[in-house]
Amino acid sequence: MTAAMVDRTHFERLDRDDPLAHLRRRFSLPPDIVYLDGNSLGPLPSHVPEVVADAVELQWGTDLIKSWNRHGWWSLAAEVGQRIARLIGASPDTVIGGDTTTVAIYKAAWAAARMRPGRRRLVTDTGNFPTDLYALEGVARQAGWEIVATEPGDIADFIDEDTALVALTHVDYRTGRKHDMAALTEAAHRAEALVLWDLCHSVGAMNLDLGEADLAVGCGYKYLNGGPGAPAFVYVHPRHLETVENPIQGWWGHARPFEMETAWSPGKGINRMQVGTQPILSMISLSAALDVFDGVEMTEIRAKSELLTESFIHLVDERLEGFEVVTPRDPRRRGSHVSLQHPEARRIMAALIAEGVVGDVRPPSLLRFGLAPTFVRHVDVWEAVERLRKVMEEESWRRVPAAEGPVT
Amino acid sequence: MTAAMVDRTHFERLDRDDPLAHLRRRFSLPPDIVYLDGNSLGPLPSHVPEVVADAVELQWGTDLIKSWNRHGWWSLAAEVGQRIARLIGASPDTVIGGDTTTVAIYKAAWAAARMRPGRRRLVTDTGNFPTDLYALEGVARQAGWEIVATEPGDIADFIDEDTALVALTHVDYRTGRKHDMAALTEAAHRAEALVLWDLCHSVGAMNLDLGEADLAVGCGYKYLNGGPGAPAFVYVHPRHLETVENPIQGWWGHARPFEMETAWSPGKGINRMQVGTQPILSMISLSAALDVFDGVEMTEIRAKSELLTESFIHLVDERLEGFEVVTPRDPRRRGSHVSLQHPEARRIMAALIAEGVVGDVRPPSLLRFGLAPTFVRHVDVWEAVERLRKVMEEESWRRVPAAEGPVT
Repeated sequence: MTAAMVDRTHFERLDRDDPLAHLRRRFSLPPDIVYLDGNSLGPLPSHVPEVVADAVELQWGTDLIKSWNRHGWWSLAAEVGQRIARLIGASPDTVIGGDTTTVAIYKAAWAAARMRPGRRRLVTDTGNFPTDLYALEGVARQAGWEIVATEPGDIADFIDEDTALVALTHVDYRTGRKHDMAALTEAAHRAEALVLWDLCHSVGAMNLDLGEADLAVGCGYKYLNGGPGAPAFVYVHPRHLETVENPIQGWWGHARPFEMETAWSPGKGINRMQVGTQPILSMISLSAALDVFDGVEMTEIRAKSELLTESFIHLVDERLEGFEVVTPRDPRRRGSHVSLQHPEARRIMAALIAEGVVGDVRPPSLLRFGLAPTFVRHVDVWEAVERLRKVMEEESWRRVPAAEGPVT
Repeated sequence: MTAAMVDRTHFERLDRDDPLAHLRRRFSLPPDIVYLDGNSLGPLPSHVPEVVADAVELQWGTDLIKSWNRHGWWSLAAEVGQRIARLIGASPDTVIGGDTTTVAIYKAAWAAARMRPGRRRLVTDTGNFPTDLYALEGVARQAGWEIVATEPGDIADFIDEDTALVALTHVDYRTGRKHDMAALTEAAHRAEALVLWDLCHSVGAMNLDLGEADLAVGCGYKYLNGGPGAPAFVYVHPRHLETVENPIQGWWGHARPFEMETAWSPGKGINRMQVGTQPILSMISLSAALDVFDGVEMTEIRAKSELLTESFIHLVDERLEGFEVVTPRDPRRRGSHVSLQHPEARRIMAALIAEGVVGDVRPPSLLRFGLAPTFVRHVDVWEAVERLRKVMEEESWRRVPAAEGPVT
């Protein structure tokens, strides 16, 4: 992109040529906003209200207890897992849906501790999401691990023969920096350590290849658009499937859940990573939302994501002053959101939201813009930067109180 | 009740005099069935479809990320906890909603282990629900506990000074036998052991008084009618609230969740028992369903439950042959479901469902009838037994294949 190309018609043309443009029509988006927060809460797919209403009124209301079999409630966790498996480059029987991301992290990290007894080190980085760090800290206390939280660029240097687990978030929730999954997995494996990837800010926004990675988790409510707090998922590499241990033993993870046996016996393969009865309404919403990805090539999702983030960074460079792009400029090193640093981030974002562009803020000074390739248009990138320019030129952000509080 | 009173008009009269009769009108029940499985999946409260549709279309679809504050998504776990607290005789700030029952059991039992280091025994009983036993077995392995699973009547005899935790389900999911909560809590405390009550088959069906009990859990999808797989809850006695430890450390349990700190710091009081982002659609359904209990005295709920179960047992005695009532005949010793033993339980229940009476089966030989005081009418008890009598007299159950498979 050259400076000469920078006008709205350029982005309108990109939208006309966008092979994924039809996906936006699958969402029910408010007409008057540019929604760039799909990396925090994905928008509502248009068909989901009817699916959820049917689940409530027909399945629960009318068919009642029969629905567990008649409407496939029992198999939702496996079904969600299988559908997500395709999106993350895993085989269908290695992923199971359910619980929260934090529970998934806890289970996976605890399982890793059991697979590497005697090793005393957990390597992570300071860019990991707080809940990951909290859950890992809890497991580390149980496992007797020392936690080494390095700078994101130094991870490989700290993996040694005493390292049990390398636990990382693939895409940094603040900066958008993407780790080299294959290289770090290989670095961990050279030391015979295990690796756990948190895919919360990756799944649904790019093609993924877990390759030899041992464990992975992710959430359903960001780029997968499964609804607020939609259940999470956990992945286990096939080589561990018959030995992996789940600390939270529950009847859904049992080998014979309906026999109501009194002794624990882990289920076959990935089923053993399940716990208890899942929140079915939220599971149904997530399962339905995954329809959006049917027939979609994740490489095309990634290609569009690279283009959107490149355009955004370019426009910020060309048309704004006072913002530092903290997201890597090398597209191979970033995910699908772009973060800008500014000391008045919070007030600026509040003013921008008043202009109809919804991003969010990560304190103290990051403005975050999620460019979800499923529903964000190229003109949205233009609009976002133009309205941000307006906010800065008109100084409307100065009218936002400096007091603390949520921007949305 | 005398034999002379046993006709349908007697039960119609009871319904006319029922101070809780109005509660049935709050549910959307299929017109043509007698639903006696509310102890497995509570029916749909009539107002819930609109509440969930609003959550999907307006909150998620239109207000998007703003809804976390605008529509109180953040506070749902606390709100659900406070509303359930009243139903179980606890103070509002001692209960928090979220996660699954199994996760709740795991957290509570693990917390108990930390509070009683050095003690090596867990006492439970063989009537505990399988998922409780599985979760406890997992915690026991971590804590180095020996598990003593006694007959339900012998529990107090096995509590000794090496006992860390007594973990029991209040009402047996098979027989309906109810433990004496106060007496067993006292027996545990005499040995300075802790006690954990699973209230899954109690909450919403009776008045409860946790008294000095240390920990409790329960689910939202049975007598609370929160929807399929509705989230669970956990209770911690006030004396433990500032010291209790949660093994699954997540950002919702952090002291300052929005500060995104890298180090764990447990939240104030019951908040520290939270984990990660909850499934909001299922939480909203549960929260709305709890409206049914607004203004309802739980002692009246219990009184009706005792009457329903007494009538049911009486009618079985008077009008059926070949069924053994396994539920205690002393109303103080039972919950709100009645179980009948019969070697052909599965085929009989299938035939009874074909007659419009929905109960369920616990293999190999129990027919289970949930008599939820919120929506079950006294005439439903009469109808259930009469239709069961018809199934037996006409031997329609013999036409049901003997092969295995779900009855519903």
